[in-house]
Amino acid sequence: MEYKFSDKVSGLQASAIREILKFTADPEVISFAAGNPAPEAFPTERIAQISAELLRDDPILALQYSITEGYTPLREFLKGWMTEKGCFHKEFDDIIVTSGGQQANELSCKVLLNEGDTLLCESPSFIGSLNAFRSYNVNLVGVDMEEDGIDLAKLENALKTEKNVKILYLIPNFQNPTGRTMSLAKRKAVYELACKYDFIILEDDPYGELRFAGENVPSIKSLDTEGRVIYSSTFSKLISPGFRTGYVSAPAPVIQKMVVCKQVSDVHSNIWAQVVAHRFMTTIDREAHFNKLRAIYREKCDLMCGFIESGFSKEISYVRPQGGLFIWCTLPESCDMNAFCTRAVRDYKVAVVPGNSFSIRSDEVSHSFRLNYSTPTNAQIEKGMEILSRMTREMLG
Amino acid sequence: MEYKFSDKVSGLQASAIREILKFTADPEVISFAAGNPAPEAFPTERIAQISAELLRDDPILALQYSITEGYTPLREFLKGWMTEKGCFHKEFDDIIVTSGGQQANELSCKVLLNEGDTLLCESPSFIGSLNAFRSYNVNLVGVDMEEDGIDLAKLENALKTEKNVKILYLIPNFQNPTGRTMSLAKRKAVYELACKYDFIILEDDPYGELRFAGENVPSIKSLDTEGRVIYSSTFSKLISPGFRTGYVSAPAPVIQKMVVCKQVSDVHSNIWAQVVAHRFMTTIDREAHFNKLRAIYREKCDLMCGFIESGFSKEISYVRPQGGLFIWCTLPESCDMNAFCTRAVRDYKVAVVPGNSFSIRSDEVSHSFRLNYSTPTNAQIEKGMEILSRMTREMLG
Repeated sequence: MEYKFSDKVSGLQASAIREILKFTADPEVISFAAGNPAPEAFPTERIAQISAELLRDDPILALQYSITEGYTPLREFLKGWMTEKGCFHKEFDDIIVTSGGQQANELSCKVLLNEGDTLLCESPSFIGSLNAFRSYNVNLVGVDMEEDGIDLAKLENALKTEKNVKILYLIPNFQNPTGRTMSLAKRKAVYELACKYDFIILEDDPYGELRFAGENVPSIKSLDTEGRVIYSSTFSKLISPGFRTGYVSAPAPVIQKMVVCKQVSDVHSNIWAQVVAHRFMTTIDREAHFNKLRAIYREKCDLMCGFIESGFSKEISYVRPQGGLFIWCTLPESCDMNAFCTRAVRDYKVAVVPGNSFSIRSDEVSHSFRLNYSTPTNAQIEKGMEILSRMTREMLG
Repeated sequence: MEYKFSDKVSGLQASAIREILKFTADPEVISFAAGNPAPEAFPTERIAQISAELLRDDPILALQYSITEGYTPLREFLKGWMTEKGCFHKEFDDIIVTSGGQQANELSCKVLLNEGDTLLCESPSFIGSLNAFRSYNVNLVGVDMEEDGIDLAKLENALKTEKNVKILYLIPNFQNPTGRTMSLAKRKAVYELACKYDFIILEDDPYGELRFAGENVPSIKSLDTEGRVIYSSTFSKLISPGFRTGYVSAPAPVIQKMVVCKQVSDVHSNIWAQVVAHRFMTTIDREAHFNKLRAIYREKCDLMCGFIESGFSKEISYVRPQGGLFIWCTLPESCDMNAFCTRAVRDYKVAVVPGNSFSIRSDEVSHSFRLNYSTPTNAQIEKGMEILSRMTREMLG
């Protein structure tokens, strides 16, 4: 038979990064294209120990159906922890446990947007989120970024010209793909705009705890007095992405609708992972664990940045990230970025992600590419960056 | 601020069963309202053993990001197993692992239906699926059931009168809530109608392996020559519902779109559970395990049916199920079903689910209620059914 798909998904493509990742099946290729946490960052022994105790002493808890909102002790822990971080206002917020940070994006979109409503976001932005928004046929509008975050003048212009703006989607800390962090002044300004133009901010913060340089910047959620911020984060980078355990702190009426939508989507998230995450977070020295992770990513980032600074052609610019997993490099406008990335993986066997993978519109021209330092080993970073350095100098001088 | 939700979710309510389940927090209440597998059906020791080995020998596999389609060895196992069961046609089908059976419903709807398109289903039907369909603002039309499944004349009438019928949703084995099984003749007939009227059948089969009486009936998927059947099932009743691990066998182009939609929904399902499910299914004696489950549910069902036959007022009718988890009882039309269910839980401390929870339209009148025998212990079944028996005789004679 001939299959007719719904309007909302018929144009939807699998992540373009997956296409690049196909090349990385070649064992000769060194990949800076992924976004996986470093394997050495997983607290494998402690997870195994907690899991063994759980399945021995409380197997039915770990295996039976659970409630959609999430495992109650985990939600209670999150309320406390998020309060400490300024990300939970007990007067009006509630918490839902989600199947990874990704589900927070999808639920926000499904709950708040009709087809054709406008969702604003940073340009470029995380492809997984963009595709979630696209899958609801919303009017997706990108706003250019500066070094310290979204361009406020362009944002206000979009707010004046676009119709039915319901959500502004932001990754304020170590943004994917740019690695940039939004300044406190801009966080305050976008919150004021949200109040003035009556929209909701979806603050996606998967990397916030992975700050290895500079000073912590308060979240936009911490500035939320009117209940306008949906704050989402995840245990993917702190414990394990395979868990698919994330969480959202948002005004109770929004959480209530998210619960109804999550119920019809997957009933609840894997409960073994929720219980393990709860026991892990409440029995370890959290700061010591986070410091260990920060040290791993600081070392890898420093190693990669060292090569960019001493080895790359001076024609390539970048902003050194203060945390997270990614570095964003920009080629001179004379250089064909797609040709550069294709040549890198085909001829030099080093995979990077072409910047237009993160574009909001398909007709945008990007001159940038994304490097990831969390997944490769230090030896792979050294070898791959030496090759890339040579290639950039040969091509650009 | 005042929250405005999307049209598709603003009318959506949490499952009405949850309201009933609130009463069951009272420890005095005996609940026949749930739908959980029997705790004694969980293979807890084997799961603990497999998990311990996995987290010891291959922790990164269990904790790192994985691919959206599902863990490859699990998909390969499923292709073989589903082929044996006639539910996978290697010429045109593919497999995706989902976050429980529930996600299969949501993905099918998102991939194939625009708002306003028609989805037909049995009336009554499973509330979780109905709410998934409602959350996409589709035209949901119920078709009455007979003892051997959907009423074919009424189905064909709906096909002639409803516009843009894209999907017929069916639970052919031990349907939730009625416990009824569709005859082979009707399965053949609905497949022919699908070919004639050009729609897709979504065959939801969570209980198929839990047949404890009567002869196995071939799946509709096994009759699929044109690639018109999306077959979904789950490990929830065979291993653990807390895993949230289900699967879909469907034509490759449909699976491809489901993969894209699942990617934006939760990236992939919890990978620990996928690996444990694969190792469990490929290392145990499957038939012996299923026979153990069937024996548990046969005993519980027989126990409950015994009370209905010898204790209930003769005014109450029911069809004895041949498998699954539920019994559907119908009161005489003179009896107010909602008053009956409320009185049962409030005055007699026995919870059952009012039949209108499974209605397609809110204005439908139901005279039935659903009993579950899988969750209560045998002692609870005995005590609760004695009370219910007494109550039915007091009320109905």
